[in-house]
Amino acid sequence: MTAFQTIQINTPPPYLSLSKDEHLPTILTIAGSDSSGGAGIEADLKTISAHRCYGMTCMTALTIQTPVKVFGIHLTPKDVLKQIIDVNLRDMRCNVIKTGMLTLDAIDVLAEKLNSMDPKEKPLLVVDPVLVATSGSTLAGDELVQLIKEKITPLANVLTPNIPECFKLIGENVKIESLDDVRQLAERVSDVTKCSNVLVKGGHIPWDKNGSEKYITDVLLMRDEQKFVVFKGHFVDTTNTHGTGCTLASAIASNLARGYSLCQSVYGGIEYVQNAVTIGCQVTKSHVKENGPINHVYAVEIPMEKMITDDCFTAHDIVPTISNDTELLSKKIGNDFFTYLINHPFVKPHWQSYINHEFVKKIADGSLDRRKFQFFVEQDYSYLIDYARVHCVAGSKAPTLEDMEKELEIVGGVKQEMDHHEKRLREDFGVKDDEYFANITRGPALKAYSRYFNDISRRGNWQELVAALTPCLMGYGYALYTFEKQITVTNESMPLYHGWLEVYSSAWYREAMAKGKVLLNNISMTYPQEQLDTLVTIFGEVCELETKFWDAALEY
Amino acid sequence: MTAFQTIQINTPPPYLSLSKDEHLPTILTIAGSDSSGGAGIEADLKTISAHRCYGMTCMTALTIQTPVKVFGIHLTPKDVLKQIIDVNLRDMRCNVIKTGMLTLDAIDVLAEKLNSMDPKEKPLLVVDPVLVATSGSTLAGDELVQLIKEKITPLANVLTPNIPECFKLIGENVKIESLDDVRQLAERVSDVTKCSNVLVKGGHIPWDKNGSEKYITDVLLMRDEQKFVVFKGHFVDTTNTHGTGCTLASAIASNLARGYSLCQSVYGGIEYVQNAVTIGCQVTKSHVKENGPINHVYAVEIPMEKMITDDCFTAHDIVPTISNDTELLSKKIGNDFFTYLINHPFVKPHWQSYINHEFVKKIADGSLDRRKFQFFVEQDYSYLIDYARVHCVAGSKAPTLEDMEKELEIVGGVKQEMDHHEKRLREDFGVKDDEYFANITRGPALKAYSRYFNDISRRGNWQELVAALTPCLMGYGYALYTFEKQITVTNESMPLYHGWLEVYSSAWYREAMAKGKVLLNNISMTYPQEQLDTLVTIFGEVCELETKFWDAALEY
Repeated sequence: MTAFQTIQINTPPPYLSLSKDEHLPTILTIAGSDSSGGAGIEADLKTISAHRCYGMTCMTALTIQTPVKVFGIHLTPKDVLKQIIDVNLRDMRCNVIKTGMLTLDAIDVLAEKLNSMDPKEKPLLVVDPVLVATSGSTLAGDELVQLIKEKITPLANVLTPNIPECFKLIGENVKIESLDDVRQLAERVSDVTKCSNVLVKGGHIPWDKNGSEKYITDVLLMRDEQKFVVFKGHFVDTTNTHGTGCTLASAIASNLARGYSLCQSVYGGIEYVQNAVTIGCQVTKSHVKENGPINHVYAVEIPMEKMITDDCFTAHDIVPTISNDTELLSKKIGNDFFTYLINHPFVKPHWQSYINHEFVKKIADGSLDRRKFQFFVEQDYSYLIDYARVHCVAGSKAPTLEDMEKELEIVGGVKQEMDHHEKRLREDFGVKDDEYFANITRGPALKAYSRYFNDISRRGNWQELVAALTPCLMGYGYALYTFEKQITVTNESMPLYHGWLEVYSSAWYREAMAKGKVLLNNISMTYPQEQLDTLVTIFGEVCELETKFWDAALEY
Repeated sequence: MTAFQTIQINTPPPYLSLSKDEHLPTILTIAGSDSSGGAGIEADLKTISAHRCYGMTCMTALTIQTPVKVFGIHLTPKDVLKQIIDVNLRDMRCNVIKTGMLTLDAIDVLAEKLNSMDPKEKPLLVVDPVLVATSGSTLAGDELVQLIKEKITPLANVLTPNIPECFKLIGENVKIESLDDVRQLAERVSDVTKCSNVLVKGGHIPWDKNGSEKYITDVLLMRDEQKFVVFKGHFVDTTNTHGTGCTLASAIASNLARGYSLCQSVYGGIEYVQNAVTIGCQVTKSHVKENGPINHVYAVEIPMEKMITDDCFTAHDIVPTISNDTELLSKKIGNDFFTYLINHPFVKPHWQSYINHEFVKKIADGSLDRRKFQFFVEQDYSYLIDYARVHCVAGSKAPTLEDMEKELEIVGGVKQEMDHHEKRLREDFGVKDDEYFANITRGPALKAYSRYFNDISRRGNWQELVAALTPCLMGYGYALYTFEKQITVTNESMPLYHGWLEVYSSAWYREAMAKGKVLLNNISMTYPQEQLDTLVTIFGEVCELETKFWDAALEY
């Protein structure tokens, strides 16, 4: 006899009913299929979906490939291409068409279709001229290059060639040694393709290859607006770059479909690809060493995990009970997690630069330029509201009501610090306008810090949030220990600086630091022992953000 | 002269670097392509991506179709299929194979491949026997049905036929009028397919069609475990169901690839499809009336929006400054948003059932069963910790520090209420064990409420959170107004009930209610006027959750 069991499916969460019949932006991708999923139509669909858009397809060919190589190709007949494009554009809304690998037939069919359409109904067109793969191999013959320039690129809103593809398009290789070379190249590509917007992808040329900071530049020529925009991105040291070209063009197409400007869309696309490359993914077998795919789904939450945590919104789910082997743990970290952290090889250099910072020294001896101090106070004022918000988030994720209340207490302390800052700005720097405080411009160091906080708030659990919040509390106090004996300013000579120094060496601040140490021990005891490095990484990275925050004030 | 501009791309957020080279679960989908994007391989890839998994493809055919109809089909040659499957399984990790529309060639190639593989290396196999479309049209001839049963289904870990497909598989139509009929059908399908796990999809038969609550049942037979699991889902009244079959099988495959059990995977798959159907999407042109696609990306955040908000984590971004036309607004809602809300046609019935609830009446006259009251106190105790957490979240999103502090003040009040409950449970119900409070079992009404709170916390802004939090505060007070004159219990006769009633008619509670009304006016002034219905919907839905919370206690 079979046992019966009934399981009730949860009702849909409220935000679904609130946004019924969502008008998803739609993109038709016309490209080849990459059966191994990293490039081509597959990469396009993944990217479009990751942008909460709706993808339609027209496969110009099935390629038989893996990251190892292309093993074969099966072209789609012209009449099939024609029918697919016809019915899609007849029955489906289409905001943007994005093309990847085109065949001679596909070029014919698409050009004819676009030329026959009512200009008001014509979708935007993003053309990724897939002529040379990221790996360097040529994908298209001269006839095809000629036909694309003749029939497709003049209809495009933007082209996204890499540098070898630019050479193909202009018919010769040229030296690229400076940004101005790239600008000239973009202009020549624009001439021969009759397309006024050209994004030259710098993925193949990491500038400053031998410099200390590697970065990648992508440059967008917008001829009609007489603009040339340089996007400076971070170089990621990886060989897993299969499909970056398709992905960037699809991300740009998705952003355009949502109504962003070309420049915004390119910005968003580059950042998306950079993130997808940074995290990467391991999906090949061990004999495949190179050119693995990027991670299109880096920002997607796993539905099952969400369902499980949704099912019961309790501390128990948020912070799983860990029974760490305390003996093993104390062998590893000693009796004080804070001491372990600041001496950890990853944290130590950041911690040391932080607590020995010139900025504090110059306040102590009174040599800091007042304008720099004002800049710092403004930035710190803005920072503190983030800091308070993250404490609220930490409260919402704390395992017990007591832990929750501890987080909320701190918000009261933050309010006091903000009041001090407001007083300084009004009394010492003559601020009169109430609007002033809401309109402080956030500098790059503060933005980077805020961004870090925001990501931690969304994704981090309670322990990770505590690890991110503690460096600010501890570092200010320890910096004061460092420079204690070098304080020459007095309440009479420089009340502004003296007052600031007093706060972080006061008895109540040192008491708060002692509580911070207890909290750090708490989180180390309840965090999975084998993942402790995550807390170390967070703590160290935030020490670095703190150092850069003071750097920014010094360099102001 | 062209103007140069440099834009710095943000550094990748911390959680990306923390999870470098993510081992994404991998799924190879072998199915037909639906060029319009709603079903087939396209639906599979969208679903797999929405599950943060990695999809690979083998297209058995290109179908030329839109939600209107299938216009044509172009089969993939056998040698291409063979090469694709061979190289994918050689170079790529593959956790699960999911099949959709198979051709005779595809069946041959797949069966041969699977039979030749080392059993330890063989991926799991999820077979969606695409024989009859959701719309009812037959997709496969008898020869194909025979070949699938002979070569494919005996290798499958689970089959996911709809009821017409079950008929095709067993070779006859049978009457389905009860759950037991479905069980027998599943067993017969299991016999003829030699597959022990069969999920019979009930999408075509909404049971209780004429009853008040429509629902859909999917049933999973697990023969080896002698189990028959009935999944009871919510019926969504829509004609946009194109691609639900492909989507469910892909969702199950994704969950299995992640390591969930079959039963968990099916649960997650059904909920995912239900949500995707509930929100739906509008992507067809206006002449297409039926069978539109579902919304695969309902849970995906838009990267550009995230980047923009990440860029600067300030109140200004979280709550955009709205300058409502106050005259127009007060014409619409009068001078008091609370009065408007409780009289709104959507809210009124829920509000009335809530504040006139029998549960409170029975406390007032002392006739409530003590065990029911205990159940309520336990549930409410668990509820209050959620309530405190959501206030923390609201604090983190509040536009000003003052608003933030107001939210946090409430957490203090919540703590008091919890202390009362703890005292009741210890003194009146003899609870001695400290563990008791952490281990209260959450009933369905509380779970539904928690789930609602959780979704609002993740997605809602400050105003929406306030709208969700206020019914609890106001309703308890108003219920006390309703039954004020019917209170016959006294502190002497029934101190337990009398004490409870006293809290919600106390002066401090009424003061809190007055503050709540001010806050509601505040949010109505700063929320986009044309979207005010969102706040109305949230307020009304939460009143309904409150009513059900008391219902659950009465029915205990």
